[in-house]
Amino acid sequence: MTDYGLGPYRALLEVTTRRYAPDCQWLDLDHDIALGDVRAGALTLRRVMPQLPPCVCVGVIDPGVGTERRPLALRTATGHHFVGPDNGLFEPVARRLGGVAELVDLTSSRVRGQSRARTFDGRDLFAPVAGSIIAGAKLAELGDHADPNSLMALALPSPRRTATGIETSVLEIDRFGTLVLALDEQLSLVRPLPEIGEHGTIIAGPVRRGFTMGTTYSDVPAGDLVMFRDSDEALAIARRDGSASQLLLANHGAPITIEFEPSDAAA
Amino acid sequence: MTDYGLGPYRALLEVTTRRYAPDCQWLDLDHDIALGDVRAGALTLRRVMPQLPPCVCVGVIDPGVGTERRPLALRTATGHHFVGPDNGLFEPVARRLGGVAELVDLTSSRVRGQSRARTFDGRDLFAPVAGSIIAGAKLAELGDHADPNSLMALALPSPRRTATGIETSVLEIDRFGTLVLALDEQLSLVRPLPEIGEHGTIIAGPVRRGFTMGTTYSDVPAGDLVMFRDSDEALAIARRDGSASQLLLANHGAPITIEFEPSDAAA
Amino acid sequence: MTDYGLGPYRALLEVTTRRYAPDCQWLDLDHDIALGDVRAGALTLRRVMPQLPPCVCVGVIDPGVGTERRPLALRTATGHHFVGPDNGLFEPVARRLGGVAELVDLTSSRVRGQSRARTFDGRDLFAPVAGSIIAGAKLAELGDHADPNSLMALALPSPRRTATGIETSVLEIDRFGTLVLALDEQLSLVRPLPEIGEHGTIIAGPVRRGFTMGTTYSDVPAGDLVMFRDSDEALAIARRDGSASQLLLANHGAPITIEFEPSDAAA
Repeated sequence: MTDYGLGPYRALLEVTTRRYAPDCQWLDLDHDIALGDVRAGALTLRRVMPQLPPCVCVGVIDPGVGTERRPLALRTATGHHFVGPDNGLFEPVARRLGGVAELVDLTSSRVRGQSRARTFDGRDLFAPVAGSIIAGAKLAELGDHADPNSLMALALPSPRRTATGIETSVLEIDRFGTLVLALDEQLSLVRPLPEIGEHGTIIAGPVRRGFTMGTTYSDVPAGDLVMFRDSDEALAIARRDGSASQLLLANHGAPITIEFEPSDAAA
Repeated sequence: MTDYGLGPYRALLEVTTRRYAPDCQWLDLDHDIALGDVRAGALTLRRVMPQLPPCVCVGVIDPGVGTERRPLALRTATGHHFVGPDNGLFEPVARRLGGVAELVDLTSSRVRGQSRARTFDGRDLFAPVAGSIIAGAKLAELGDHADPNSLMALALPSPRRTATGIETSVLEIDRFGTLVLALDEQLSLVRPLPEIGEHGTIIAGPVRRGFTMGTTYSDVPAGDLVMFRDSDEALAIARRDGSASQLLLANHGAPITIEFEPSDAAA
Repeated sequence: MTDYGLGPYRALLEVTTRRYAPDCQWLDLDHDIALGDVRAGALTLRRVMPQLPPCVCVGVIDPGVGTERRPLALRTATGHHFVGPDNGLFEPVARRLGGVAELVDLTSSRVRGQSRARTFDGRDLFAPVAGSIIAGAKLAELGDHADPNSLMALALPSPRRTATGIETSVLEIDRFGTLVLALDEQLSLVRPLPEIGEHGTIIAGPVRRGFTMGTTYSDVPAGDLVMFRDSDEALAIARRDGSASQLLLANHGAPITIEFEPSDAAA
């Protein structure tokens, strides 16, 4: 997973990894993460990696490449490996995969390629390390032992239950305009939720719209909003046959207020 | 083929399919179909799949996911399989591949994953079914027998020959701005066509431009329009070294009038 | 590598190649080259291919498809093969890979598919030829012998050293907004360069900005410009935590003047 898009940088990651692990199976997880958006990358890894069997993930959302940020490789309790920058990218997914079992600092890794470049660690450090792990190398051979608890944490906004509803912000927006309002692990912060079929009002800046609590899009008529648990158990709001993000004019990080009592203003 | 773009949804389709069919060969047919554009997806499948050997295609252009639309798997007379929503997406390609030989309704399929989600059938139903077919399962084991003739049809605009030319609309536009005006199977509706080298006028809203009947771009000078049979035998109009779509200000579905006699207004 | 984007044209290249070489390993090098931008494609090939082991590259940036431009296949001294149009696309990379060892003209190739189309040589000619080479065919079996020196050259802008700095233009811009000002092979034209840590001014149209000569982003504070040798040894200018291209309002081909003495105007 990178923010490289689909150009040659991505190809060089794949080629370099295969140089070390010729028979590996390669998966393009996502290369369309917004440039340097560590939080978006971290939430994508957290969402997707638990659905994959143990494997080696190169994650390069790395606005700090060429600076002093620590490069690392780690193994989770589940046996998944992650290789990339220590900037918060791997903390949510590692926590979800049982925590960090082993972590090495790659700053002085002998695996770094021959390039004198200091601006393309994906090719020159992370892919060689990932390929080496796939080919059987031990983490201890690839970097210097580091404290598993030293992994940089990622600050995530915290939704909270109020007397009448929820105060939160937009955590993720998918391609279809569905907004994630609370991750599965944050659900305890927003309970109790309304029963299926109950109504409420969602407020995003100047926009107020009614919604129905449901389980899927067909619980509301076309054009209406439904609040539901998404395919990864997060609390989300979607618009049937449309984009909730566009309807609510709500982008990443936008503050959201939810009122669980039906509102007269609900359209 | 999906409208998922290149993010994690696509990756989860691939991963899930491989869980059922670890050694399968995966092809990304197209993930850039416009969101929910069933017709564009259907025409892409119709165009591309006959060029592939028998295989299993997951097609998810599914604006109705989470509603009552029927999920299905089918096999054509040629041995190609398709898995996805019954919304017209597969009808043109199935017709072109000899028709539907077998069709099952997946509504009650036992293959559905453990997810309680009802909004990601690509991952939770279609990919598991596709992987199961690749791994050797019979359609009858995966869903309930249904009438092969019950496949939902897709309404396509029909070009027609007039006394002086053709009335049609833009069926497809490719990345290079070439417009498809009549599918190969619709050619009988627009015959007779001009001879190679003859001229005409194409009218799209307020725009009138001359064109030459030809076989390829080099039949006209740079910037001019050529009408020709495209690489899949459809009737198309292209601009040499440019975009016919931009020149004619013509988008998907735009009505097009073609006059086969040379026109004074032709530029 | 193509300018096809990620739609079905790309898929048909892969499928067709595999029809001739079922077990080949497929790499998507880059399909996001700007439409018809032969120079961008040529520079990408030149940059990436030397990092790949000998392999067969189909390169289709081919604004002249369907005209009289020559289709070709060639082998470099290093054993890399290239198949595509003779429009300059392969000249820089061939030069970098030791020159052309063998070249064949595919105009009358017997490998052309059965399609009567003349507008999709990627599918109908280049992919079949590439697949045939992978499967063991000799170039001489696929086309007519041609002079290795007949490969069309690509005109590249030439940077030059002035009394006080460099005059050049933007040769490449990557996804992160980093500008390439001189390719590695052009460095002799711009020497001597400043020492690491020295300063200068870069002028792009009305925009004047100071920069520091360095080796990586962390050599300057956030927001500042650093001139450095990039991951392929080219002379480049980047902005730490930002886009040099946006800061300098400089697109492909924009003229750039660099003054090596520190300037009062440097911001």
